[in-house]
Amino acid sequence: MIKIEGIAASAGVAIAPAFKLEHPDLTVQQRSVSDVAAEVAKLNAALDKSKAELEAIKERTLQELGAKKAEIFEAHLLILNDPELISPVEDMIRNEMVNAEYALNETANQFIAMFENMKSAYLQERAADMKDVTKRVLIHLLGLNYVNPAEISEEVVVIAEDLTPSDTAQLNRKYVKGFTTNIGGRTSHSAIMARSLEIPAVVGTKEVLAKVNNGDLVIVDGLDGKVIINPTEELVADYRNKQEKYQLQIEEWRKLRDQATVSSDGVHVELAANIGTPNDVPGVIDNGGEAVGLYRTEFLYMGRDKLPTEEIQFNAYKTVLEKMEGKPVVVRTLDIGGDKELPYLDLPKEMNPFLGFRAVRLCLDRTDIFRTQLRALLRASVYGNLRIMFPMIATLDEFRQAKALLLEEKDKLAAEGIEVSDEIQLGIMVEIPSTAIIADQFAKEVDFFSIGTNDLIQYTMAADRMNERVSYLYQPYNPAILRLVKMVIDAAHKEGKWAGMCGEMAGDPTAIPLLLGLGLDEFSMSATSILPARSQISKLSKADMAELAAKALTMQTAAQVVELVKSIDA
Amino acid sequence: MIKIEGIAASAGVAIAPAFKLEHPDLTVQQRSVSDVAAEVAKLNAALDKSKAELEAIKERTLQELGAKKAEIFEAHLLILNDPELISPVEDMIRNEMVNAEYALNETANQFIAMFENMKSAYLQERAADMKDVTKRVLIHLLGLNYVNPAEISEEVVVIAEDLTPSDTAQLNRKYVKGFTTNIGGRTSHSAIMARSLEIPAVVGTKEVLAKVNNGDLVIVDGLDGKVIINPTEELVADYRNKQEKYQLQIEEWRKLRDQATVSSDGVHVELAANIGTPNDVPGVIDNGGEAVGLYRTEFLYMGRDKLPTEEIQFNAYKTVLEKMEGKPVVVRTLDIGGDKELPYLDLPKEMNPFLGFRAVRLCLDRTDIFRTQLRALLRASVYGNLRIMFPMIATLDEFRQAKALLLEEKDKLAAEGIEVSDEIQLGIMVEIPSTAIIADQFAKEVDFFSIGTNDLIQYTMAADRMNERVSYLYQPYNPAILRLVKMVIDAAHKEGKWAGMCGEMAGDPTAIPLLLGLGLDEFSMSATSILPARSQISKLSKADMAELAAKALTMQTAAQVVELVKSIDA
Repeated sequence: MIKIEGIAASAGVAIAPAFKLEHPDLTVQQRSVSDVAAEVAKLNAALDKSKAELEAIKERTLQELGAKKAEIFEAHLLILNDPELISPVEDMIRNEMVNAEYALNETANQFIAMFENMKSAYLQERAADMKDVTKRVLIHLLGLNYVNPAEISEEVVVIAEDLTPSDTAQLNRKYVKGFTTNIGGRTSHSAIMARSLEIPAVVGTKEVLAKVNNGDLVIVDGLDGKVIINPTEELVADYRNKQEKYQLQIEEWRKLRDQATVSSDGVHVELAANIGTPNDVPGVIDNGGEAVGLYRTEFLYMGRDKLPTEEIQFNAYKTVLEKMEGKPVVVRTLDIGGDKELPYLDLPKEMNPFLGFRAVRLCLDRTDIFRTQLRALLRASVYGNLRIMFPMIATLDEFRQAKALLLEEKDKLAAEGIEVSDEIQLGIMVEIPSTAIIADQFAKEVDFFSIGTNDLIQYTMAADRMNERVSYLYQPYNPAILRLVKMVIDAAHKEGKWAGMCGEMAGDPTAIPLLLGLGLDEFSMSATSILPARSQISKLSKADMAELAAKALTMQTAAQVVELVKSIDA
Repeated sequence: MIKIEGIAASAGVAIAPAFKLEHPDLTVQQRSVSDVAAEVAKLNAALDKSKAELEAIKERTLQELGAKKAEIFEAHLLILNDPELISPVEDMIRNEMVNAEYALNETANQFIAMFENMKSAYLQERAADMKDVTKRVLIHLLGLNYVNPAEISEEVVVIAEDLTPSDTAQLNRKYVKGFTTNIGGRTSHSAIMARSLEIPAVVGTKEVLAKVNNGDLVIVDGLDGKVIINPTEELVADYRNKQEKYQLQIEEWRKLRDQATVSSDGVHVELAANIGTPNDVPGVIDNGGEAVGLYRTEFLYMGRDKLPTEEIQFNAYKTVLEKMEGKPVVVRTLDIGGDKELPYLDLPKEMNPFLGFRAVRLCLDRTDIFRTQLRALLRASVYGNLRIMFPMIATLDEFRQAKALLLEEKDKLAAEGIEVSDEIQLGIMVEIPSTAIIADQFAKEVDFFSIGTNDLIQYTMAADRMNERVSYLYQPYNPAILRLVKMVIDAAHKEGKWAGMCGEMAGDPTAIPLLLGLGLDEFSMSATSILPARSQISKLSKADMAELAAKALTMQTAAQVVELVKSIDA
């Protein structure tokens, strides 16, 4: 039995055999072959195996996840059945008398390079398909044993160095009961995905991948950040208990679905959800969200080969507003750049993209893009309770410029006789230190603040949160961060405005007592965190938490603050 | 006559003909040649021309700048005279019947790639030499007309898109009377170099390169940020006047060399200098510096193929301390990483190096490197008034760890019977927002603060100061920055400590009134800015400036603050 400590990234307990997700070594060597016919036969056998696999996966995906998700495998089959793509491989084997792996790899790389060079998002996706398919055939040619995560068909716990977005997109919730990784933290991509899929997860274990063998029984304790390999029967029984108790707790939480969020001393706060597409709205309602606190509009711009039209945007915003039935919806205008790229905008590479030309900085330059979004938002405003929020505002000048563009578009719509709501609140993300520091000046001009802690922390600590070597500096509980949060909340209240938070911190059980104490009005988080947060807040006295927060502000280190918060449970 | 506005980057007025510094197009095409002998003759002619040029430059450099500076040209001549390097070019022309440019380029690129692949800083420099020489020969082969900036031998104003470090290193102050560039700001490399060389400069003109022809008479007004092309005779006379007046002012300033820096109401502040090597110390003394406020130790680590030994470091620190004759010397420990790389450390590439593994973050990991530097500093401490400063401190934990390592090394030295001063002050750079925000907590444990505004501004505004597209956000006068500066100064004074500043802002005439008003104790700047700053401060009342600063802290934008400061002259 081996016990490993890690970071609790997604709540719950999973108990299942280990499935190690390791990317195989697909290095290909060039060899001369004399028996060309045998080499071609080898290629065809690998192609046939790959096609049979893809047919099976396509069929299963179709049954379990629907036609949309199965499309990708259909596309892969089309590639393997296309003589224009496959016969050059055979030709190369025959003409150059080389091995099949080498011929396949060279030919595929030529097509991939060609696709990637064409500046079309569509063709770039085709390059990605081609890579996936080539990998599948190569695995058969090289006689390797590898199961794609999408093809897992038994209950498992996935063990990996890290999970990439494409890995997590392929995980099937039906079979993947939990996962654990060597690297990552609470705000890494894989952790956020785990919470959204409601799969228990422990990340940042450093060593789990080396310690586990395929098929070992593994417990993933996403409540306390522990992983146990080959547990004793007794321990398995204990954890089945813990699992059941957690299930009961979830059922308790569900009873809070239609209740308001009120502290034990009677103060109401608003619990809202962060969403990415209109499809996320049912989850918000199902989890008792009182509002959408952050609608990230980037997804409308991604996975396309050109900008979305005003009409496409209008329909998305209208759908969200209507589905939320009059509850507030805070829409963040385009936050692209940084780690989020749009190939069709063809922006220059930057040395420090997180400190670069992104979000509102780009929108104030590319006003054509910005005006289209603002028009779509204004037109949608009559279908619900719209609030518009500008990201990455660093100076009052930027806010004023963005607001002026909004008002211009509003006037134009009025002139065209198109109805626009007069009740739209206009706010900003506070995610840049300068804006938090002079929040008192901003509060005179904005309707609300929403603190974006993910970025605010990385700028305040000058540490890229994606960079493992400095991840120790991503400190939500550092007193400096708490002081900035306080400045923003106090500034809002002094001018009669409200202050929310839409970073990961807003749903973090360690941060919630402090944020309640600092006077935060709105907490926006993953939908699945809302009910646990409502339950937690109902047991906390806001007056006591204000005292706690005041103490935290005078502390020297993040560790001291965490200790202080833990003391309230003791 | 054309007038162009730009950014005043280095004071003074220059009037001289234009010299456009443009890098020629050295694209080489492959061609088949039938007359191989003629092609070889062409190669040899270009080689001979290049050698003759190099001999002449070497001779002139030797006379004017000394043997050290002439070495580089000697190295270039060695390359051209080395048959091992040159005969492969001739062979390629003969064997492959290709043109000389192509043969030269291909051969040189092979050598360059080979040198660059060997992980030796020495061989990488050889690759740079090879590139320079190849360029020179190619220019002759292609029949281009190009003058290397090092070879300018008449008085000129240099006009360029931008100046790279290697360009500025080659500029000869004797002939280059001023320069002006299309891009850059007050803190860009070229601007800092201009101030240190005392050459008038205007940067960020956007269009000067397109508007000027070689030989046009140009006025560079580095006092007011103006460039005038083909001025009228009347205007030339006006500017000769301005030039003379500025010369007189410089002479006035020189009289302040041995005086203390005292405001008009009798408050003393300290004016210190930023230095990079012991060779900079005479300039500090010559310009009346009261201290070294920032000794950047990175240069000891650069231009080598391995880490500098303790002995090399000890000698450098000892020299600076001795030459400063008991005046304070603040030594900053190694600040590598970010935009400053050391090839021999072989650090992984980072996505956002400015938010990455640099400075004290690296030193606390690579304690071997750090301990060697600390030992060298401690041993040197008995030769003067040493102050040690850690860069990029973001948390108290980091400061405590760094201090613990220092005390350990001190104990070890004591055990070895080596004398160490007991008067060493230990401080930190304040360049990360978190540290400024909880400066009150830091002030209990450090002996002093030195505010590093270059980084503090870029993190507080979340804008890479090297990135042209967001350079509008590099705002030293933003009220948020001034509030952080105030927090740091107040925190220091409350604990009886001192607060200095060693960023570009400390020597900026617009910032000085505000900094004096905020109570800054020490201003550390380019040595050449010290006397103008002393003169400026002697005319300002600290009490009045305190009122001015208090007003600035309540303003909304940087532009309002600049207007406020300008009002005191009016």
